[in-house]
Amino acid sequence: MKTIIFGGDGFCGWPTALHLSDLGHDVLIIDNLSRRAIDTELGITSLTPITPPPERLHAWKEVSGGKIGFQSLNVAKDYDALLEAIRVYAPDAVVHFAEQRAAPYSMKSSAHKRYTVDNNTNATHNILVAIVESGLDIHLVHLGTMGVYGYGDAGAEIPEGYLSVQYPGEQGPIAREILYPAAPGSIYHMTKCLDQLLFAYYAKNDKLRITDLHQGIVWGTQTEQTTRDERLINRFDYDGDYGTVLNRFLMQAAVGYPLTVHGAGGQTRAFIHIQDTVRCIALAIQNPPVAGERVKILNQLAETLTVRDLAALVSTMTGAPVRHCAPLTA
Amino acid sequence: MKTIIFGGDGFCGWPTALHLSDLGHDVLIIDNLSRRAIDTELGITSLTPITPPPERLHAWKEVSGGKIGFQSLNVAKDYDALLEAIRVYAPDAVVHFAEQRAAPYSMKSSAHKRYTVDNNTNATHNILVAIVESGLDIHLVHLGTMGVYGYGDAGAEIPEGYLSVQYPGEQGPIAREILYPAAPGSIYHMTKCLDQLLFAYYAKNDKLRITDLHQGIVWGTQTEQTTRDERLINRFDYDGDYGTVLNRFLMQAAVGYPLTVHGAGGQTRAFIHIQDTVRCIALAIQNPPVAGERVKILNQLAETLTVRDLAALVSTMTGAPVRHCAPLTA
Repeated sequence: MKTIIFGGDGFCGWPTALHLSDLGHDVLIIDNLSRRAIDTELGITSLTPITPPPERLHAWKEVSGGKIGFQSLNVAKDYDALLEAIRVYAPDAVVHFAEQRAAPYSMKSSAHKRYTVDNNTNATHNILVAIVESGLDIHLVHLGTMGVYGYGDAGAEIPEGYLSVQYPGEQGPIAREILYPAAPGSIYHMTKCLDQLLFAYYAKNDKLRITDLHQGIVWGTQTEQTTRDERLINRFDYDGDYGTVLNRFLMQAAVGYPLTVHGAGGQTRAFIHIQDTVRCIALAIQNPPVAGERVKILNQLAETLTVRDLAALVSTMTGAPVRHCAPLTA
Repeated sequence: MKTIIFGGDGFCGWPTALHLSDLGHDVLIIDNLSRRAIDTELGITSLTPITPPPERLHAWKEVSGGKIGFQSLNVAKDYDALLEAIRVYAPDAVVHFAEQRAAPYSMKSSAHKRYTVDNNTNATHNILVAIVESGLDIHLVHLGTMGVYGYGDAGAEIPEGYLSVQYPGEQGPIAREILYPAAPGSIYHMTKCLDQLLFAYYAKNDKLRITDLHQGIVWGTQTEQTTRDERLINRFDYDGDYGTVLNRFLMQAAVGYPLTVHGAGGQTRAFIHIQDTVRCIALAIQNPPVAGERVKILNQLAETLTVRDLAALVSTMTGAPVRHCAPLTA
């Protein structure tokens, strides 16, 4: 099976590329290395020393015999090159991670808001248009987020993408299954809601086969493949923009700083380990929707925890005290 | 009252600028003249001979004494200039027409699809970001479309933007008012659905005051102001991309060609005259939502007709015969 991984140099993309290669996929990574550029912009680095793409790919070939291709390309800007890459490679599936994925980064300034909307919307739309224009029957798998559902108390179990609702009609009650009403809490999350409308349109109008995976917060660093050689190591981000809550707590504990919980810490979040993320993506590729079917939306999480409970868990394991702070305001 | 009209050189924007100027508003038009550039691209022109912006504005000053400012600026691309214009002019309200507005044009090719999504989404988002960054309390009025609701049989009266639905919850039925589920039938209509999510987010997160006017197909050419001088005349488009159904029928009748109805002609569409459009916009400006309120969504139409009925009406008035053709396929 031939698979392109857009954003295959990033935190989720890289281990996905290795996992699929290990399963026997023919894999091509397309990435403009924007995540590494943002490291430079913010003056941060992954705690784990990630190697440059050629070294990563070379190491993988040495370790596994698997050959992963790499092409540097800005999916949101270089449409002609994107279309050409799809035509030449003729993949069976593409996995789309090519989006700016940090909520705090998306809110830093006007420029960051604009970059996130421009980059994410055009990346998604360009991939959709290119699939249509290629005329190839390609399954698109996208990494969404549980954040499209919002983080308020829904009062009901969150369904997978669609909600069955009733409302009064002229001939009595009308029952419809609708896309779950979007409730994004950041610019980043909003772009994933925009993506959903783009996907719904192209699934209906052009009969594209699309799977949208709404994952919880992905934690962990290594997968079975990335541990095989030091040069294959995955990112570990702990800065204020890209470091998610667990990584932040772990770093605070490691340097002898209290675990900082802002507000009551009562926000519940879903979590999934990176090892499960890559397995989910492989499963999604193996189980595509049929042409003409609506977008297949799946929620992917292993557990849910409040931030308070997560702090308590890390505190128990590390001995670090928990400090409650005033709520953060953006 | 100071008002900026983004897209103030277009079919709706121009008569709106004159109407507001006539009401005593201090008006600034910001437009990159993209609609005139598309005339050149497609090799078409307005049937009515529209004059260049300086001549239009000069004529208006002669006729009415009103001074309308003009700035050429690409709202979707030139963010810094946009922000500067908003800061310097400090409007009380802005009216946002700065979007590619023809469904057929948005579907012509990959490039047209991509232009429409890129231009419309970034234009809307840039205006929102600039209002936030300016720190000014500016009411944003946007021209949406009835097309966000979709053109299928809803089985119930279409509400104004929001739908009251019920679904089962853990503690019994949950009642919620949600944004009406988007059902766009073209790339153009889809961008207006994306706009809705952007508006909802900024109304909630940044407490922007936003009104979204979902108008039917705007017909007619002249308003009370545009008839005052030949140099003020408004556009009349009758080509296959920008000519809406009534203008197409009128042109067919005028040149002695049958009125072509594709398929059964049973599609119902909403219509509003340009004179009513400009009045609606003035009313919307006078009745803003308060900060923190959800987006105020209003449907604006004068009547609904099926395409078949519209053809019959034009046929009765002009004597032109109606010809039923096989359904159009895009």
